[in-house]
Amino acid sequence: MIRSTNYDPISDPAYKAPRKVVSNKKKRSVLLTAVLTSVIMLLCMQLLVPGSLAFEHSRKTNKKNVIFFVTDGMGPTSLSLARSYRQFKYNLPYNDVLTLDKHLIGSSRTRSSDSLVTDSAAGATAFACALKTYNGAIGIYPDTQPCGTILESAKLNGYMTGLVVTTRITDATPASFSAHVNMRSQEDQIALQQLGHYVLGNMVDLMIGGGRTHFYSGEVESLNITNGARKDGRNLITESIENGWQYAGNKKEFDSLDGGKNVSLPLLCLLADDNIPFDVDRDENEFPSIKEQAMVAINALHEGTKDSEEGFFLMIEGSRIDHAGHNNDPAAQVREVLAFDEAFKAIIDYADSSDVDTIILSTSDHETGGLVAARQNEKDMIEYLWYPEILDNAKHSGEYLAQKISTFYKSNSLNSDKDDVNKSKSNFIKHEILEKELNIKDYTKEDIAELLSYGNDFMSIHYKLNDMVSMRAHVGWSTHGHSAVDVNIYAYSNNRQLWHDILDHLQGNHENIEIGTYMAKIMNLDLEKVTDLVKDVEHDPPKDFVSDLSAYVDQYHHKVI
Amino acid sequence: MIRSTNYDPISDPAYKAPRKVVSNKKKRSVLLTAVLTSVIMLLCMQLLVPGSLAFEHSRKTNKKNVIFFVTDGMGPTSLSLARSYRQFKYNLPYNDVLTLDKHLIGSSRTRSSDSLVTDSAAGATAFACALKTYNGAIGIYPDTQPCGTILESAKLNGYMTGLVVTTRITDATPASFSAHVNMRSQEDQIALQQLGHYVLGNMVDLMIGGGRTHFYSGEVESLNITNGARKDGRNLITESIENGWQYAGNKKEFDSLDGGKNVSLPLLCLLADDNIPFDVDRDENEFPSIKEQAMVAINALHEGTKDSEEGFFLMIEGSRIDHAGHNNDPAAQVREVLAFDEAFKAIIDYADSSDVDTIILSTSDHETGGLVAARQNEKDMIEYLWYPEILDNAKHSGEYLAQKISTFYKSNSLNSDKDDVNKSKSNFIKHEILEKELNIKDYTKEDIAELLSYGNDFMSIHYKLNDMVSMRAHVGWSTHGHSAVDVNIYAYSNNRQLWHDILDHLQGNHENIEIGTYMAKIMNLDLEKVTDLVKDVEHDPPKDFVSDLSAYVDQYHHKVI
Repeated sequence: MIRSTNYDPISDPAYKAPRKVVSNKKKRSVLLTAVLTSVIMLLCMQLLVPGSLAFEHSRKTNKKNVIFFVTDGMGPTSLSLARSYRQFKYNLPYNDVLTLDKHLIGSSRTRSSDSLVTDSAAGATAFACALKTYNGAIGIYPDTQPCGTILESAKLNGYMTGLVVTTRITDATPASFSAHVNMRSQEDQIALQQLGHYVLGNMVDLMIGGGRTHFYSGEVESLNITNGARKDGRNLITESIENGWQYAGNKKEFDSLDGGKNVSLPLLCLLADDNIPFDVDRDENEFPSIKEQAMVAINALHEGTKDSEEGFFLMIEGSRIDHAGHNNDPAAQVREVLAFDEAFKAIIDYADSSDVDTIILSTSDHETGGLVAARQNEKDMIEYLWYPEILDNAKHSGEYLAQKISTFYKSNSLNSDKDDVNKSKSNFIKHEILEKELNIKDYTKEDIAELLSYGNDFMSIHYKLNDMVSMRAHVGWSTHGHSAVDVNIYAYSNNRQLWHDILDHLQGNHENIEIGTYMAKIMNLDLEKVTDLVKDVEHDPPKDFVSDLSAYVDQYHHKVI
Repeated sequence: MIRSTNYDPISDPAYKAPRKVVSNKKKRSVLLTAVLTSVIMLLCMQLLVPGSLAFEHSRKTNKKNVIFFVTDGMGPTSLSLARSYRQFKYNLPYNDVLTLDKHLIGSSRTRSSDSLVTDSAAGATAFACALKTYNGAIGIYPDTQPCGTILESAKLNGYMTGLVVTTRITDATPASFSAHVNMRSQEDQIALQQLGHYVLGNMVDLMIGGGRTHFYSGEVESLNITNGARKDGRNLITESIENGWQYAGNKKEFDSLDGGKNVSLPLLCLLADDNIPFDVDRDENEFPSIKEQAMVAINALHEGTKDSEEGFFLMIEGSRIDHAGHNNDPAAQVREVLAFDEAFKAIIDYADSSDVDTIILSTSDHETGGLVAARQNEKDMIEYLWYPEILDNAKHSGEYLAQKISTFYKSNSLNSDKDDVNKSKSNFIKHEILEKELNIKDYTKEDIAELLSYGNDFMSIHYKLNDMVSMRAHVGWSTHGHSAVDVNIYAYSNNRQLWHDILDHLQGNHENIEIGTYMAKIMNLDLEKVTDLVKDVEHDPPKDFVSDLSAYVDQYHHKVI
């Protein structure tokens, strides 16, 4: 971990410790093979398009790293909430700010091509392809034609590339940079493309996140994993290992990456079948923080490109700020924002210590939940306040607590006396959940009756718990979906000229697609050339693909408890 | 009105038409008299403080105009809402933006000294005195000691000063620049100080807005006004006229000011007893737009300072964006924001045409209402959309329509048959209000029953109408009060060096008090010197002052229909 702004990772002896890094020569050979393979595939498919496949490297002397943060679902209020929560928790002065706050440069308008309220797929495609598309679209135009992404174009231009998330690596945001499908729920197909099983070959050098389930089918004894969701029977994890990917599948294996020093790219690191737990629930022995994930990625990519003429493009997503918004869970959200802010700070520190020109951008795809830091609980009682203390009292997310109740219910169902069961459930909710976990002691009989009335509907129990916290904290929500408010843009560069270039292009209020356009410009990428290359990528859902609207909406949570 | 960016008001022959403008010499003599009077008053009151009363003019060569806009209650969502509404209404492309959008430079943290959620008094005092104080405080420290304001300091440094609002001129925002009292509801005292009845004498050269009621008592036959709320029996309007103020009390008299060309400063222009109507309800024959108000102020102050070594300080408030927020009325709010945006554009155009270095800043004191551009109306139905068309369908504010219902009820009460009365009320609400005014035809029996059930509780009727619009537009609200989200900062200057100076100080995320500090810096003001001068201003409420909490909260609406 880089802590000092004067730190130079290149001169740090620790960096010279033995590492499983493929030599530069070897990497070039791998890259050459990948490019040749792509050309041969194109020829085979009779898809050779007019113009040259060779990308002009016009900025040879101008090596850059571009790190793009996405705070999924973080709107303006998330900042006010997390900042004041942090001030309360650590007894900081009223003007203490987040690292993000120090780097605000503007705001982004987020609407998609088909709605004033975007989803994450259209939102991320706006960044990745610099164009507006429809909600649900992954790396494709509104007419479903695939669009070349900045990640693909960067890779084809000699950059190394990485994706770091805290949700599924196949979810909308990372997918939009590394895949092309009609609907975000085609996650089996997304995983294939991310691993290079498409016309361009392997475009992603590093993936760290959750979402293992779409990389295997059923059970894989050798890896000790059992919940594979793939419908094609394939095991992409073992296939990838055979194809030369380094794989890390749990915290122990993550730790063995030694903060990025012991990485052989390409790296596939899948730490959970679905999401990595919310930071407030995270057992640090089981899961790394987003900062730890980010630093592994940064150090591995830094090292992987140290002798290259081009740097790296890395997308890091604070994915679950969005989930806390969908769940209307303010206690989980403030911790997600703070965990993200620490990762952001670590990367700023990295940039300060790096000898490579580094551009850091951070923005959101949209706001989630319609979060408000004020809430009128009674018709005639307008109060000018909200209470961070209530959020601090909550020791876990509603998601975690609903799961805990579910587990208790299951164990308790063995008891045959119905009255005893109900009494036992009621006591568990009162004492173990509300009092111990949320420090809520002023619950009413009606609250308990409502919670019990939901039976095994754990989503309703979950939402009720979050509402009990929100109501007491005077925090408002208007939806379990997204909203249309402009979101903030943050930026930094360790190069003054680049910093002014960023301000010239992104200071103030901008369309989300301008952020994608700027990233393409700063890396000297021609996205249209890539669009030509990917135009025949298979992107329709498979014939047996089941998708109804409710399943689509459900993708925002993915897993119903 | 100045329309071209090349327009030069100084060389415009229209400007040389006969006008009732006091000569510069005469103005200086008036100013000298005012200053002398202040000194004598100070001596009489044995209040002479250490240090000099004479303010050093260290920037003689550096004439500046500072125009400070306050968008009361406008949070980030107000912009998204108004922008998309405008695109819908005028069939503009998705990337069409407001003038404000083009000038975004950062955001402001708004908390007050005693709450995470500020009110407008503490919010405006943060700008005026560059310090955090308690909610309700007007131009005073948290310990109730008066604090010198940038308006007072600017005036004492040779600037001319003005206040333009669309609510009462005695309301919290304008008051905080021009008065010092413990509680915002002491509006009778605020009016006195604004007219110079305090130690500093007359500090405000121009006031345009509503709030006439706190300037007179009962009825004034000569002025044809009848609802004076003053409790001291005084008539400050006739007193002011006697003291040399030009007075305009209605649209006709406002028009006679000839866009500011026919103004003799000081000017007192009070266009309504309470608020000027919402722009959506405004009869242009009865009330000017905020843009028209602003242009009168700008032209009068420009002319008034044309031969001075110092320019002017003008505060212009889009006051009723806040009221639309308090009322949870999205249809009124989008029109308020657009009317404000037009005024903002006109002043940008003025700056471009002016030969005086001009600094334009615009920000909000806080967000109001917890506005969200998305709303989940049904438990299991998450939708990614909101509908600007619904807001366009609403031809009036809820406030106006509730007043219309009230008027109908009164006229209808003469009918003696109770069933006939109810049927008549029901038909009026259905056909005249919901269908004709809001274009709502899918109202339910329950909606009508609810509206009728409120009887003469017109506030509840008002809120229900706004909710019917908000619900259909998928617009959410969490409170009738304020919220803690950061608000936007906008800026412009016609001088490149000043523009960069603004960015150096206010680009990014800042405390609201930094905006006050910056305005003091840019005008070279020493607020502490003024604080010394005003320290003994009478600021406690009078002994017979009645204030309970509900009255205090009610100040946010002032008038219950």
